[in-house]
Amino acid sequence: MQDVAIRMVQDHNAPDLVKPGVATPAQSQHEDIYAVIDLGSNSFHMLMVKVVGGSVQVIGRVKRKVRLAAGLNDSLVLSKKAMNRGWECLALFAERLQDIPAANIRIVGTATLRLARNVKVFLAEAEKILGHQIEIIAGEEEARLIYLGVAHTSNCDSNRLVIDIGGASTEIVVGTGFQPLLLASLNMGCVTYLDRYFADGLLTEDNFNAAIAAAEAEVETIAQQFIASGWQISVGASGTVQAMQEILVAQGQDEVITLARLEGILQQALVCGQLEQLTLVGLAQERKQVFPSGLSILIALFRKLHIPGMTLSGGALREGVLYGMLPQLQHMDVRNRTIASLMVRYYIDEQHANRVAEMALQLANQLQAQWQLGKFEGLSMLKSGALLHELGLLIEYKNHHHHGAYIISHTELPGFTRAQQQLLMALVYNHRADINREIIARQTMTSVLLAVRLTRLLRISVVLSMRRRHEVLPEVQISAQAESLTLTLPKGWLEQHPLMRAELEQEVAYQQQAGWLLLLK
Amino acid sequence: MQDVAIRMVQDHNAPDLVKPGVATPAQSQHEDIYAVIDLGSNSFHMLMVKVVGGSVQVIGRVKRKVRLAAGLNDSLVLSKKAMNRGWECLALFAERLQDIPAANIRIVGTATLRLARNVKVFLAEAEKILGHQIEIIAGEEEARLIYLGVAHTSNCDSNRLVIDIGGASTEIVVGTGFQPLLLASLNMGCVTYLDRYFADGLLTEDNFNAAIAAAEAEVETIAQQFIASGWQISVGASGTVQAMQEILVAQGQDEVITLARLEGILQQALVCGQLEQLTLVGLAQERKQVFPSGLSILIALFRKLHIPGMTLSGGALREGVLYGMLPQLQHMDVRNRTIASLMVRYYIDEQHANRVAEMALQLANQLQAQWQLGKFEGLSMLKSGALLHELGLLIEYKNHHHHGAYIISHTELPGFTRAQQQLLMALVYNHRADINREIIARQTMTSVLLAVRLTRLLRISVVLSMRRRHEVLPEVQISAQAESLTLTLPKGWLEQHPLMRAELEQEVAYQQQAGWLLLLK
Repeated sequence: MQDVAIRMVQDHNAPDLVKPGVATPAQSQHEDIYAVIDLGSNSFHMLMVKVVGGSVQVIGRVKRKVRLAAGLNDSLVLSKKAMNRGWECLALFAERLQDIPAANIRIVGTATLRLARNVKVFLAEAEKILGHQIEIIAGEEEARLIYLGVAHTSNCDSNRLVIDIGGASTEIVVGTGFQPLLLASLNMGCVTYLDRYFADGLLTEDNFNAAIAAAEAEVETIAQQFIASGWQISVGASGTVQAMQEILVAQGQDEVITLARLEGILQQALVCGQLEQLTLVGLAQERKQVFPSGLSILIALFRKLHIPGMTLSGGALREGVLYGMLPQLQHMDVRNRTIASLMVRYYIDEQHANRVAEMALQLANQLQAQWQLGKFEGLSMLKSGALLHELGLLIEYKNHHHHGAYIISHTELPGFTRAQQQLLMALVYNHRADINREIIARQTMTSVLLAVRLTRLLRISVVLSMRRRHEVLPEVQISAQAESLTLTLPKGWLEQHPLMRAELEQEVAYQQQAGWLLLLK
Repeated sequence: MQDVAIRMVQDHNAPDLVKPGVATPAQSQHEDIYAVIDLGSNSFHMLMVKVVGGSVQVIGRVKRKVRLAAGLNDSLVLSKKAMNRGWECLALFAERLQDIPAANIRIVGTATLRLARNVKVFLAEAEKILGHQIEIIAGEEEARLIYLGVAHTSNCDSNRLVIDIGGASTEIVVGTGFQPLLLASLNMGCVTYLDRYFADGLLTEDNFNAAIAAAEAEVETIAQQFIASGWQISVGASGTVQAMQEILVAQGQDEVITLARLEGILQQALVCGQLEQLTLVGLAQERKQVFPSGLSILIALFRKLHIPGMTLSGGALREGVLYGMLPQLQHMDVRNRTIASLMVRYYIDEQHANRVAEMALQLANQLQAQWQLGKFEGLSMLKSGALLHELGLLIEYKNHHHHGAYIISHTELPGFTRAQQQLLMALVYNHRADINREIIARQTMTSVLLAVRLTRLLRISVVLSMRRRHEVLPEVQISAQAESLTLTLPKGWLEQHPLMRAELEQEVAYQQQAGWLLLLK
């Protein structure tokens, strides 16, 4: 990499080239739109967003599989053919970029462009087409941006290890909060390793062993330092990690990737014998090609860095570049930002949501000894569920619990893993009216037992808070004998509150129907 | 009715009685909540709403089947037992009312309370329980409020006839816009006619004929005047009308109720023989009891007022009372208010929505001679679909067309009938990406042919507007030969706009896949 021209362009306020026949003054109307273009080794992406209610709303995406890396020969010269594919794609992007202010645009190129000796030829024409400068970012800068993208889309209170397997490079970072502490970029990627170790199209032990050994040797160079840094959780940000997670979930396991599970997938791949014949439950057709090379690299990383388990991040490089342009969204806890933004966007009654959350946490506290709700972020999930339980009211009252669940299951929730999102969905779906045990059982974040406990406490808190006023919340005591709950209200309170009494009795009936005992005293 | 005490209470700022142990100062926090209570002859309802984004959002409903009318004897004395049922229900409502400012509450009583000679006994205790005054509204005032409720929830440019069959009275109104012109309240209702003509529980021709003849005699007294008033469309606002529409739709017909269809339903009912044995496809269990009496009254109204066809309104008395308290929502076209409010609530890019709508209408205009899109409000639906097509973006980009359709199909849309809502849903669902013909075929508002035509024009307009800028919209010409469309762009335009060209070519492919020919020139 050292012998390659690396251009670090910090000034992304380059003038917008005016194309003939295209008016520019009206650009002012798009000042709230931002665009990030990522010229990757495998594909080029353009992401367009707007900031709505304190968080990012995607309004457009264009993606083309340019396969730039395939045009890089052994002497690191990029072929004219590959360049042409790239330029053709950029002409599409350019049309859209004209409508966005220059200051809101960042365009970055990664490994293949870093490596190509003749990158200047590509850049000259590419910048002419785009009317904007392109930043070829160094490996460490890429790693930093990936970390930022992960930090803005995943929740984490402790040191975390972030891994991103790209087409021609793999970035590895340890950081805490929004701060990367240790950065590395290795010259191995799922496209280059495909060419190098699976060129014969065979899924043999020999090919896998060679690929894994090569990747292990790469990782070895940085392993000591990264292990010593003492990270506590590990997050993956690439298509390879996403593919592995999809396979695990499709095969009935939870979302956590482990070495044993990866080796299990490897065994399944060996059975197929050839890349052309590769079919695994949960593996998307478009990922097939780079699957064995990606799997080999991931196994090497797990072995050499002693990774016990890994989840998938919602964002990576593009998100890192994007959030770098949005200073107003920096330095806020990601999960809190997600919740706060949803509350604004869906006009949630904030006072009421907080009231229900406080009540739920108060009940959970009283049961701490018996029910151990602090495990597995149970309390944080309970609080989030309470804050979001009225999400669906914007659509309609009657089935707002179902609408809220629909919204949660289809919205990107930075700071929550897919399994946490499922649990939140189950909580919101079941916060009132009939209980759907099937949906509670389907979530994989925690045991059904814990999910049921959280659901029951949320439901009770919603009923107790139904008058939407702080002063009329009763002092309640709750106790549990195994799964039987007893709710004790102040003497005479039930008689003085006939509506609440009717609602609480209805709730007892709902819980009974689901097989859960709730007593009122 | 003349010999009954009628109290018209215009001042609904009665002081809020303070209950022991209940704090009041914090009521200020609920100043945006409004409550309407309707003490009907069959059931008591409490509706609580908030105004969000320029329209009403329901945040709570309580309903109890009090069956007050059943406690009224032949001498028009209300039994103590019936009163007790009413008071018990009001105690529930009272608890919730405490949290809402007195000025935001209206409580109305209708026919049974109008008729009861001993209504004062009921009222004295009821007002004590509620801490608020109750307005027993005269029949004409009820008719006026029903009309207002319909006007605020249904779209209509011409004179309309509104019918509401209650438990003990039927209101009939002709009006235009928000202005009622002719008001009547007749002493016939589905509860009182059940007692009078179906007390033996038999579904015989004799019983039906007697009920219909009696209702016809009632309607006869006002028929002349109402027919002479020259209304153009007819809307029904009661449970009876809703039940009929549900039966028609469940039996595969469209949502328009006609005399022939009602007589068909009557034949089905006769086959059942007894009220206890009554089961019709589409008839809800809870509506069974008052179904034959309601059907008889409706048939009499159709015959005597020469009603060619009737659709269902979204609102009636409660909505009329409610909108009466919300002067900020008065006097705006209902359909426009619904669209405008959804655009605010879901943060829709208004400029862009209008741009797509203008483009769609411009294309539709060019095809006016061949495609006749003006029929059946086609242009209005096309415009509405265009204005709402990005509704689902708030949830997520990738499938935002599906999310938008979900929102439309679950949201109350004042100004649109159920069938219009289905068509809108189909348009939004199909505004981009793969076309789902099944959903277009399922809507019953118009022919599949017209729905397909609207869908195609919306899709083309979305693609042409994708750059979200007015100045770059091309001058397009569109022409049709039967269902084959040719879109002609300015010379050289496609070459100068590679992204748009790619998108238009993709759109040609989508339409081809659905079996629709689209040519680009």
